[in-house]
Amino acid sequence: MNTMKIGVIGGGQLGRMLALAGTPLGMEFVFLDPAPDACAAALGTHICADYQDHEHLQQLAQQVDLITFEFENVPAETVAFLSQLVPVYPMAKALRVARDRLTEKSLFQDLGIPVAPFANIDSQDDLESAVDTIGLPAVLKTRTLGYDGKGQRILKTREDVAGTFDELGGVPCILETFVKFSGEVSVIAVRGRDGETVSYPLSHNVHTDGILRVARASDNHPLQNKAEDYVGRVLDHLEYVGVLAFEFFEVGDELYANEVAPRVHNSGHWTIEGAQCSQFENHLRAIAGLPLGSTAKVAESAMINFIGEVPPLAMLMEERDAHIHHYGKAFKSGRKVGHLTLLAESSEALGQRLAELQEKGIGTPS
Amino acid sequence: MNTMKIGVIGGGQLGRMLALAGTPLGMEFVFLDPAPDACAAALGTHICADYQDHEHLQQLAQQVDLITFEFENVPAETVAFLSQLVPVYPMAKALRVARDRLTEKSLFQDLGIPVAPFANIDSQDDLESAVDTIGLPAVLKTRTLGYDGKGQRILKTREDVAGTFDELGGVPCILETFVKFSGEVSVIAVRGRDGETVSYPLSHNVHTDGILRVARASDNHPLQNKAEDYVGRVLDHLEYVGVLAFEFFEVGDELYANEVAPRVHNSGHWTIEGAQCSQFENHLRAIAGLPLGSTAKVAESAMINFIGEVPPLAMLMEERDAHIHHYGKAFKSGRKVGHLTLLAESSEALGQRLAELQEKGIGTPS
Repeated sequence: MNTMKIGVIGGGQLGRMLALAGTPLGMEFVFLDPAPDACAAALGTHICADYQDHEHLQQLAQQVDLITFEFENVPAETVAFLSQLVPVYPMAKALRVARDRLTEKSLFQDLGIPVAPFANIDSQDDLESAVDTIGLPAVLKTRTLGYDGKGQRILKTREDVAGTFDELGGVPCILETFVKFSGEVSVIAVRGRDGETVSYPLSHNVHTDGILRVARASDNHPLQNKAEDYVGRVLDHLEYVGVLAFEFFEVGDELYANEVAPRVHNSGHWTIEGAQCSQFENHLRAIAGLPLGSTAKVAESAMINFIGEVPPLAMLMEERDAHIHHYGKAFKSGRKVGHLTLLAESSEALGQRLAELQEKGIGTPS
Repeated sequence: MNTMKIGVIGGGQLGRMLALAGTPLGMEFVFLDPAPDACAAALGTHICADYQDHEHLQQLAQQVDLITFEFENVPAETVAFLSQLVPVYPMAKALRVARDRLTEKSLFQDLGIPVAPFANIDSQDDLESAVDTIGLPAVLKTRTLGYDGKGQRILKTREDVAGTFDELGGVPCILETFVKFSGEVSVIAVRGRDGETVSYPLSHNVHTDGILRVARASDNHPLQNKAEDYVGRVLDHLEYVGVLAFEFFEVGDELYANEVAPRVHNSGHWTIEGAQCSQFENHLRAIAGLPLGSTAKVAESAMINFIGEVPPLAMLMEERDAHIHHYGKAFKSGRKVGHLTLLAESSEALGQRLAELQEKGIGTPS
């Protein structure tokens, strides 16, 4: 019956939404995730094991046609091991770059993509002297394993600098100039096995406390072409296959690279209802070697994250233009547990609806 | 985490699409189906058991908050048994009516809904004398268990009549006048627990050999109000909860009742992409006692069934406006194994695209 079996490392909401997109394509899913309550498990087979557990990794590889990832912090050794057994997309090189902020920023620099001044920090001494060079304010971030604002510290004055290296765990860090940006945008791009690349309209992203709150599809953004140029450089350099998200700071008419995520991305969730073919389906098409789908918008749209808890369904459903995405995860403060997509016929109407929902407290973090 | 567990009797493609719609609402699914390869099983727990197996029915009831059906031929005794244990929607009365063509046609008559002359047939003698009264051409159908053109015989001449009662198995039948219709339409309606009812735009349906091939959402159909009136009478009479499909024959400016299906329906599959809230999500909202979603179209749309096999994905994906639904079922001649939804900005554009796909052989039965 011409179906395909996909292995996914990680079984969170991104894996869940991949399976929701892939099941109608006849695909079947196997998730490897150490969490017994991994929320993607409802949509496929769940191998409950550590990411370094070779026996179970091998079991996964034997069951599937190819393997992908729903997060970038997969041990390099795991990727190498799996790649010997079955095709793995995106490939090891992309994960390596995205995992380490220093490698990542250096790549941007090498590819001629604007990036704020940064320095490698291996000690408090390194930090002190980098502050002398780069100046303040600046942001100190761990080179690996940071997400949702975790593993970083904003340094405004000299007093903030003392002892900070140890406070972040004494691990390798990177110091970045604090960019004075007018906005944050991301481009979700997808590259097929044959090198064909398509991009979605830029997403305007609003973060609070380092967590994405609202992502809104842009309407003929003047920097669209620039973003596509930059993301294309990265994709081609990495010979990338699948969806990649590239986050930028908007500074005047320039984009400064912030970071890339070698996977489907929270700022692209609006594509489920808002684009002809979602980022999830396009990621699966790309890694399966199938033709890519259209990234055109079908309406103006925005996504609101539910942090900590999902409001009562009965309340959300009173909003007739809202599409609900409940991840089936235990509610916990600061955790992404769902989102909502709003569709509207015009930018103005969408802006008004976003304001109305905000007034009702929908999307307010808990 | 405010989720709900739904039990579904039957685990075919309708159950599968219910789960695809309900999972993003945080719902979990348990399917009871005797087929070991039930295609909905990929999206929930599968209890592999007969519909009369009390032990497993009880096990199902204990695991879920409520139970629904993906087909109407559930034994009455099964429904009665389950109803003692957990809420069941739609309720026994609706299933009873839809299961038996005689009860069904009689109800239409009682409710003042136009229906072609019909007669109850319990023997070849009954058939002979009914043909005298009703005339030919006529259709002989088994009262129960018919679907996709199975269990029926078209009688054109007196020669077709001889022996036909036995050929259909000697079971209770109904003889219906053959209606000279100009088209077949269906209305998909949904009624909430509180009696609120909403309907989708009428669907134009094209059948070949008794199997639905193409369903196309209508554009301001002149008989929309009439259809909504008729389906409303049935829904209110049955105190129905959930989605119900009502199929009609178009005869001039009148609609003649054909049959109802007390469930989500093949002619409503276009609502997944073509309407704001799909028939699957609306069925779940209704049975869960939640506010109903908007049935408004988001574009002109049509659905093409894949009978026997799903064409290669790579070929389908070259059609940028096509949304693929592969049911993950074994391919078999005459079996519904998937469908495709086309969206277009205008009726004309949609008609052209349908013709183009037909020329390529997409949707041609095998």
